[in-house]
Amino acid sequence: MLIVPEREIAPLMTRAAAFDAVEKVFAAMAAGDAYNFPVVREALGHEEALYGFKSGFDRAGLTLGLKAGGYWPHNLQARGLINHQSTVFLFDPDTGRPTAMVGGNLLTALRTAAASSVSIRHLAREDAKVLGMIGAGHQAGFQLRAALEQRDFNKVIGWNLHPEMLPRLAEIASEAGLPFEAVGLDRMREADVIISITSSFAAILGADQVSPGTHIACMGTDTRGKQELDPRLLARAAVFTDDVAQSVTIGEAQHAVGQGLIAEADLTELGAVINATHPGRTSGDQITLFDGTGVGLQDLAVAAAVVELAVAKGVAIEVDI
Amino acid sequence: MLIVPEREIAPLMTRAAAFDAVEKVFAAMAAGDAYNFPVVREALGHEEALYGFKSGFDRAGLTLGLKAGGYWPHNLQARGLINHQSTVFLFDPDTGRPTAMVGGNLLTALRTAAASSVSIRHLAREDAKVLGMIGAGHQAGFQLRAALEQRDFNKVIGWNLHPEMLPRLAEIASEAGLPFEAVGLDRMREADVIISITSSFAAILGADQVSPGTHIACMGTDTRGKQELDPRLLARAAVFTDDVAQSVTIGEAQHAVGQGLIAEADLTELGAVINATHPGRTSGDQITLFDGTGVGLQDLAVAAAVVELAVAKGVAIEVDI
Repeated sequence: MLIVPEREIAPLMTRAAAFDAVEKVFAAMAAGDAYNFPVVREALGHEEALYGFKSGFDRAGLTLGLKAGGYWPHNLQARGLINHQSTVFLFDPDTGRPTAMVGGNLLTALRTAAASSVSIRHLAREDAKVLGMIGAGHQAGFQLRAALEQRDFNKVIGWNLHPEMLPRLAEIASEAGLPFEAVGLDRMREADVIISITSSFAAILGADQVSPGTHIACMGTDTRGKQELDPRLLARAAVFTDDVAQSVTIGEAQHAVGQGLIAEADLTELGAVINATHPGRTSGDQITLFDGTGVGLQDLAVAAAVVELAVAKGVAIEVDI
Repeated sequence: MLIVPEREIAPLMTRAAAFDAVEKVFAAMAAGDAYNFPVVREALGHEEALYGFKSGFDRAGLTLGLKAGGYWPHNLQARGLINHQSTVFLFDPDTGRPTAMVGGNLLTALRTAAASSVSIRHLAREDAKVLGMIGAGHQAGFQLRAALEQRDFNKVIGWNLHPEMLPRLAEIASEAGLPFEAVGLDRMREADVIISITSSFAAILGADQVSPGTHIACMGTDTRGKQELDPRLLARAAVFTDDVAQSVTIGEAQHAVGQGLIAEADLTELGAVINATHPGRTSGDQITLFDGTGVGLQDLAVAAAVVELAVAKGVAIEVDI
C-alpha cells in the first residue's frame, strides 16, 4: 500500500486538482454512482475530543474508504499540533485490501474550499464582481483563494465577529490584486457572492441583508445546532446542497426545514446542476444558496487525486503489507 | 506510526494474549470505561461486497480506533485472497494522530475465539467434560482450540450441515489428545459446553437438545436475520453477551427479544461477571448462554496487544508520517 504523509500534501495538491475531484464526485453522487455511508461522530470524554468517520464509495471512480479523525481542542496550546486531525484510508473495492493512507488535514481544508468554489462556478452570476466573506478564521483563507478563481471579482468585503482577524483576508485579496473592505453585515447587500464560514450557533446573516441575484455558499454548518443564516433566507433562495440527508440534519437547512419554511423536497443536489439534469440558476434576480455540509466522498476524492500525484512525483511511501 | 502487516501476526500473536486482551476489554466495557461506536455496514453494490467499520474507545486502556473491512465473497475463487478482509487502525486518544495500522484478518479469528473462550472460563461448570461443536467452517477451528484450554475436556462431539467437513475438527481434537465423534443434534444433550459458529439464518439447535448445566457460546449470529438457536433456549437460560445493544439487534437475542420470550433487561454483559459485579452461573443445573456478537473494542484490544509484541520483537514497520 502507499502512504502519503501530511507533509507531502502541500507541495503536491493544487486547488485545481481539488476542484476537479470534488466537482466530479458531486456529479457521481447526483447520478447515483457514489454514495456516502452514515457518519459516525462521538464525544470521547477524553481531551474534550470529537472523533469519528466520514466514508463512502464512488462506483464511478472506484474509490472506497473513509476519513478518520476529529477535533482535539487542546492540541495547539498543549502540543503545538493542529486541533483538527484527520487521516484518509483508501481500499481496493475489488478485494477490500487497503491501498493508501493519506494525511487528511490540508486535504480537508482544500476539499471544503473546493466545494464552495464548485458552487460558485455553477450557480453564481457570470458577472459577479463583489465577493463577501463572513468569517475570517483559518478555513476562510482557503475559501477566499478558491472563490477568487471562479469569477472576475473586483472587490472583496468581509465581516467577522472579531474584526481584528480581517487583515488576513485583506492580505489574500491583495495578493490577487483586489481591494478589501471590512464591512457591517448590512453591507453584504453589495456582494454578488457571499461565503459564510464560521463556527456559529446562531444566525449571523439576516434575510434582508442579501440582494437579489446573489449566490451564497454556506459552509460552516456541519453539526446539529450550528447556524449561520436567518432561515427565511433559505425560503427566499433556490437551495442546493452536497448531500440532502446531511443538509436537513446537520447542515444549514436543518433550521429552515425544522421550522417548516422549506421542505426537504425543495433541496437540490449540486451534482444535478453539474450533470445538467437541473437548470441551476434560472434568472439574474434569483438568490442561489449552497449548503455545504462536507461529505466523506469529497475526502476520498481529493485523497485519491493526491495519491496519483504522489506516485507520479515518486514521493509516495510504499509499504508491503 | 507503526505498521504490523498481516503476515507478521501469526508468529506474534498467541491465544493467551488474545484471551487477556478480550477479557480485559469486556471488563472495561461493563465498568463503563470503554464503549463501542455505532457500527457502519454497507452493501457496496460491487463484487457483492459488504464493507464497514467497527470502532470504539477504551478509556482505561487508552485504545482508540476502528477496524475497517468486510466480506468479499469472490476473493478466494477469483484472486486467491481470503474473503474476509480487515485492517485495524489505532489513534492516539490524546492527539487524534494515527499510531498504528495492523492486519486484521487473523486477529478477527483470534478475538472471536477468545470471546467464547472468556465466556467458558467465567460461565461453564468447572467439571465440564464434553465439548460440543455446531459448525465446522474455518472459524470453528479457532473456537475449538481456544475452548479446549479452558476446561479439562475429555471428548469433543460435533455437528455440521455438511458432515464431510467434520474431520478438520476431529484433527484438532486429536492434536489435543481427545476423541472426536460426529453426532446428530439430539446428542448435543451430552455436551457440557456447546459452541455454535455457523452462518445460519434459521435455528439449528432445539430448546430440548440441551441438558441442564450446559454453557452455550453462540458465536455465529452477527447480522439481522441470522439465527443459530431456538429462541426458547434463551428463555431457559441465563443470557450473557458482549454488548447488549448489539445482542438484541444483530445478535442471537434479536429473535427471543423480538418474540417477547425474554426482555432486553434480562441480558447481562459478560464483563459484569469478569468484574464480579454479577454472580454469573448460580447453580450447576443452570443453562448459561453467551451471545457473542463481536465488538470493535475486541479488535482494537487484540491489535494494541500485537503492536506491543511487534515492537518488542522488532518487526513493526515504522513510517514517519
